[in-house]
Amino acid sequence: MENINQEGKSSIGVVGLSVMGANLASNIADHGWKVSVYNRSREKTDLLVSQYAGKNMSAQFSLENFVQSLESPRKILLMVQAGNVVDEVIASILPFVSNGDVIIDGGNSFFGDTIRREQELREKGIIFVGMGVSGGEEGARRGPSIMPGGSLEAWKNIKPIVESIAAKDFHGKPCVTHVGSDGAGHYVKMVHNGIEYIDMQLIAETYWIMKMGLGMKNDEIAAQFEKWNKGRLDSYLIEITAKILLAKYADGTFVVDSILDSAGSKGTGKWTSEEILEFGTVGFGFVSAVIARFASAQKKERIKLSKEFPKNSPSKMAIGMEQLENALYVSKILAYAQGYELLNAASKKYAWNLNFQEISRIWEGGCIIRASFLKELEEAFAKDNNGSILTSSVFKKSIENGTSDLRLIASAAIMNSLPVPAFLSGIAYFDSMTNEFLCANMIQAQRDFFGAHTFQKEVDGDFFHHDWD
Amino acid sequence: MENINQEGKSSIGVVGLSVMGANLASNIADHGWKVSVYNRSREKTDLLVSQYAGKNMSAQFSLENFVQSLESPRKILLMVQAGNVVDEVIASILPFVSNGDVIIDGGNSFFGDTIRREQELREKGIIFVGMGVSGGEEGARRGPSIMPGGSLEAWKNIKPIVESIAAKDFHGKPCVTHVGSDGAGHYVKMVHNGIEYIDMQLIAETYWIMKMGLGMKNDEIAAQFEKWNKGRLDSYLIEITAKILLAKYADGTFVVDSILDSAGSKGTGKWTSEEILEFGTVGFGFVSAVIARFASAQKKERIKLSKEFPKNSPSKMAIGMEQLENALYVSKILAYAQGYELLNAASKKYAWNLNFQEISRIWEGGCIIRASFLKELEEAFAKDNNGSILTSSVFKKSIENGTSDLRLIASAAIMNSLPVPAFLSGIAYFDSMTNEFLCANMIQAQRDFFGAHTFQKEVDGDFFHHDWD
Repeated sequence: MENINQEGKSSIGVVGLSVMGANLASNIADHGWKVSVYNRSREKTDLLVSQYAGKNMSAQFSLENFVQSLESPRKILLMVQAGNVVDEVIASILPFVSNGDVIIDGGNSFFGDTIRREQELREKGIIFVGMGVSGGEEGARRGPSIMPGGSLEAWKNIKPIVESIAAKDFHGKPCVTHVGSDGAGHYVKMVHNGIEYIDMQLIAETYWIMKMGLGMKNDEIAAQFEKWNKGRLDSYLIEITAKILLAKYADGTFVVDSILDSAGSKGTGKWTSEEILEFGTVGFGFVSAVIARFASAQKKERIKLSKEFPKNSPSKMAIGMEQLENALYVSKILAYAQGYELLNAASKKYAWNLNFQEISRIWEGGCIIRASFLKELEEAFAKDNNGSILTSSVFKKSIENGTSDLRLIASAAIMNSLPVPAFLSGIAYFDSMTNEFLCANMIQAQRDFFGAHTFQKEVDGDFFHHDWD
Repeated sequence: MENINQEGKSSIGVVGLSVMGANLASNIADHGWKVSVYNRSREKTDLLVSQYAGKNMSAQFSLENFVQSLESPRKILLMVQAGNVVDEVIASILPFVSNGDVIIDGGNSFFGDTIRREQELREKGIIFVGMGVSGGEEGARRGPSIMPGGSLEAWKNIKPIVESIAAKDFHGKPCVTHVGSDGAGHYVKMVHNGIEYIDMQLIAETYWIMKMGLGMKNDEIAAQFEKWNKGRLDSYLIEITAKILLAKYADGTFVVDSILDSAGSKGTGKWTSEEILEFGTVGFGFVSAVIARFASAQKKERIKLSKEFPKNSPSKMAIGMEQLENALYVSKILAYAQGYELLNAASKKYAWNLNFQEISRIWEGGCIIRASFLKELEEAFAKDNNGSILTSSVFKKSIENGTSDLRLIASAAIMNSLPVPAFLSGIAYFDSMTNEFLCANMIQAQRDFFGAHTFQKEVDGDFFHHDWD
């Protein structure tokens, strides 16, 4: 492949050479594109260039030279910290770029900032792309899942390069698509991360049930995850969970047993929950996964309270591995259902016209939530892009069987004081959405009683006030 | 009582004469204070003055005359729609007020706006009070619970009037206190409303279990709520629930059965959930109660999905009334525990120095969540203002017994496909906070595996990265 232009200029430039930026730059260079690299401090640039074994990498040590080293229209990929830093870096680049040049933000930026930046830069004649990139270090280096937003013209400009560096889906096509205008790419990446939060919490709860509820040892649990990873639960997170459970220190003790049960969280999980509140979709899973992390962070308080409320050792739960697999699988379906409901609401509000089949497809490879399940999801949306995951014929049977087992496992966990907020959120979601009648008539009556808020008697019907007293 | 000043001027003025404003103005006048009233449109002013039978009310039809009719320092209570309207009304009043005058916002304003307004007006020499008022129409007229923030000087100015109009607590003292500086009053009102959301959802789920899970009829359920209302569940919301269940139309059918199970929500419930996400406290209950309303609003989707996933009629659950009472009571304790954890976090951040005993006390009367339970809460905080509700000796026994029954009832509901998100949120909260060990070690391991996020081995300990592969 020979993509370097005649005058020796670079096809693209990367600003910000921390792990993700350095790995993406190397990935791009691997694929035959000449790439200019720049970092505010010289050390990271020197380190990358010294470590990168291939050709096609041009180190630059001033922003002006960096920009001048790019062929027109210039393509500048920012891999800097989300937040104000993005605005600062854009401002420092602006004096050197020209009409029609393309600035790409590949960080985990808030989609609202991306909408603002796209508009501000469009007014200056600069094309802006907010681009979600998932896959961690390894994905960035070997092939991530890429979720670019922005105009069709922007997409035309970046398509050849991003298609060449992306992971491959189950059909062998690149895990990248034009997601939608302005903030669509970062929004979809945010929901991806929200689903990742739920998926991780579900797997962790499954591990916990096996360990605490069934008394299984780490290598037995690992063997179970390995087995599941050959079936319909096949996924990156299941795969690494098995590896994690087997990892030992030099002294023969398990690494996982040494780790503090106190998880941090970054912006995207919280943002997804805020969007649930904003749109009013039924996202029990997103908020439960985030709040479960909050609880984990309160280790000192938990130690104190655990002494006040000592737990009996869980009785050995009467549940089998097949039931657990069914429960985990249906919980995954329910998590995605909540995610696509949110995407659907956002797509309407922002006129993004999101293609759910394509979004499912580009998550099939490279990203943290990649899973064979995504193929079924792609298939479901191929049949009906506006359809609900819950009613798709692809998942119907799994949902019917899975929810029965999920109920048994959740009940057993509750009776044994094992915290399973993610499993419970799936039940709350499913039962709240599949019952024709809920108890909210009482809430409406109460609101009308004390605040004269009025109530309806039928959907889209008139409003009534009753004189209760 | 003779509070009218020598020159015939009014002690206070009320701007905005919708239901809450009109009722508060009448309440103030009832207590011997001369009150000037003003509304943008003349009709509401005329209506109020014609309906109010007592003396002490002075109708004003220009803002300038309205302000001039008040004794100095002037006290102006705004009862207008929260949001921009508050800023607009303040701006229209500013030309007529003087140094040291007091403007009070008695609406459900966002506390962040209150902090901003207090500062802006302080710089102009005007004293600003953000004041939460709870009790609905009836409370405003006969005695609400009042939660004023602002400076000590502001408090000194408004104390005589607000103490005279407030409801009475269990000791006969007024349900009002100086909550804290700037936004403290509106923040506490917001959390009050968040607790109200949970309380209503819990009662509605209890009604639903009796109706759907136990096959009880409306009058049987009403009788049960009436009985509970004579015991430790004694509260305004339990009381009106019994009344609601007995209310019939002229044709003899029950009103509650005619009401659409589709509940709306206003800003404060959502705000409380957003604050949970902001502070990272373990507020499963707040978000579950809000999302339960979101689900209720999706009636059409639920009708569709209920046909795809038909439910068996619930088998008659093997639970007794005493168990249900215990479960409801402990869920209430857990809801308040989550509320006070959030208040504690906000109090630290904003240096409000909130007095939890006082907050519990002023909720004992007038407001929607008033309950005999608040007396126990006051007692718990009297023993230790910085203590946790969970570890207070006042509630220890109720929590131990109640959680056992809560587990039984939640499990039975899950097995019968009855949605009980609020009950489940209590279990998620309790089990997440009272287990020394959670499954989050696995989440930390996963994050370190794919993103090199590192992990700790002990609280406040060093950070490690493991080379997993």
